[in-house]
Amino acid sequence: MASQSDRKATVIDGKSIAQTIRSEIADEVRQLSQKYGKVPGLAVVIVGSRKDSQSYVAMKRKACAEVGIKSIDVNLPEEVAESELIGKVHELNSNPDVHGILVQLPLPKHINEEKVLGEISLEKDVDGFHPLNIGKLAMKGRDPLFEPCTPKGCLELLSRSGVSIKGKNAVVVGRSNIVGLPVSLLLLKADATVSIVHSRTPDPERLVREADIVIAAAGQAMMIKGSWIKPGAAVIDVGTNAIDDPTKKSGYRLVGDVDFKEASKVAGWITPVPGGVGPMTVAMLLRNTLDGAKRVIEK
Amino acid sequence: MASQSDRKATVIDGKSIAQTIRSEIADEVRQLSQKYGKVPGLAVVIVGSRKDSQSYVAMKRKACAEVGIKSIDVNLPEEVAESELIGKVHELNSNPDVHGILVQLPLPKHINEEKVLGEISLEKDVDGFHPLNIGKLAMKGRDPLFEPCTPKGCLELLSRSGVSIKGKNAVVVGRSNIVGLPVSLLLLKADATVSIVHSRTPDPERLVREADIVIAAAGQAMMIKGSWIKPGAAVIDVGTNAIDDPTKKSGYRLVGDVDFKEASKVAGWITPVPGGVGPMTVAMLLRNTLDGAKRVIEK
Repeated sequence: MASQSDRKATVIDGKSIAQTIRSEIADEVRQLSQKYGKVPGLAVVIVGSRKDSQSYVAMKRKACAEVGIKSIDVNLPEEVAESELIGKVHELNSNPDVHGILVQLPLPKHINEEKVLGEISLEKDVDGFHPLNIGKLAMKGRDPLFEPCTPKGCLELLSRSGVSIKGKNAVVVGRSNIVGLPVSLLLLKADATVSIVHSRTPDPERLVREADIVIAAAGQAMMIKGSWIKPGAAVIDVGTNAIDDPTKKSGYRLVGDVDFKEASKVAGWITPVPGGVGPMTVAMLLRNTLDGAKRVIEK
Repeated sequence: MASQSDRKATVIDGKSIAQTIRSEIADEVRQLSQKYGKVPGLAVVIVGSRKDSQSYVAMKRKACAEVGIKSIDVNLPEEVAESELIGKVHELNSNPDVHGILVQLPLPKHINEEKVLGEISLEKDVDGFHPLNIGKLAMKGRDPLFEPCTPKGCLELLSRSGVSIKGKNAVVVGRSNIVGLPVSLLLLKADATVSIVHSRTPDPERLVREADIVIAAAGQAMMIKGSWIKPGAAVIDVGTNAIDDPTKKSGYRLVGDVDFKEASKVAGWITPVPGGVGPMTVAMLLRNTLDGAKRVIEK
């Protein structure tokens, strides 16, 4: 029998899986266009000139272009009034060429994010963060119009890697509105036994040690040690943390919430950072936009 | 040291705690009436003549009367049209004397429950089952207008028995929309580490054995054995199951999801069935109605 140190997890290639999904989306967009003469439209709204936000938005717009989704670009100045931004959202709500609306966060301090996001039409809430969507995600027998992109991407990585969820013991580390909470609800709907550990959990390793599926979404660089991982577990690492690295030109490198080097010796499957969950988020945003468009166009 | 068989849990007297809460509510209703000349109103809608539904409704109406809440009784025949029932709900939505609306379930087969419940104004959804309320219950930083009555009653029993939740290991058995799911969300918001086990969990005892707090809401008579309980744990038993008992005149008796006799030798706190969670549900319904009324009347 191989010794523990020889074991090697299957590394889940998120970049490649996301590329496959994008090709599938591009095909469907083409068919939609041929059949109905219409393409999905995603409005990407950015306020101000934060470098990181601009780079995310540029990436999303480019991803749209590549699969044939029309990107409707809305760039507003830092000092835009809340009322004007909301007016813009209303305009996009009633624009029939727009099937999804994404407001890039964070918004400037003088604007109430919750209020603005609450104005986005449910039918165009491709981020899936509206409380009504989250409520339907939580409830048995109800289905949200859109599932949040990153959690949906985590489940997609599992299913495309052949990892079954039903009856499995899943542990989610983190309980954010964006990842930890909704991914817990998705896993529960998929019939996993779900445990949620978080910053107030005194001994997170106790539950992680018994998990068949670990979703790490704590935002803590390498907090999950290799010794915490159950042999053969599937480990999905949502964390993206910058840590100092003088050997890099930039002075830093990105690591996940899991100690990849150690964990990959024990796990059955593991996602790398970068190149794991990250590329899936954008792919799922494109998927949600396409699904929203199909609901309208095929009706 | 006492042997295991000598240990005796504190039995949480739900009937007495509910009575205390009802007195508190009666006081607040009296103050509201003195200050504003108005009392809370709860519309209790029943369709048809199911014996069990009629007895629940009679109990709720009586409970209202006892604390000074005005009960607005709506009795509709079994064959009422869905549209007529919805019309009645709309009428109650716009009636300023009504602060809470309760539609007794189940409704007759020809009526879409989800549709009818979705018509109840959010501000009057005292059952707290609207998906928007559940979404806000789930999300960090958001608060629902009303928390569902039975889950809220479970947490109230813990807090009034001096059991702290923060940082504790809580296990919820069952994931129904009415109890298991929302009580899990409440415990998570109260900073417990939460695990949810259910009918697809192959080994529920594994997690229950490590729980500081157990919420049993599976609807399976005595499925949770005494040997599963961690010494000193708090056990809240939501189950109410009728089992055959030839020694009773009725031919049956009510038992919970927990083997009370065995578990009470090990647990630190435990609720009996009946007389534990049951009386709390009605008390929390009165509390929600009062809170809804105060939001309107004190505004």
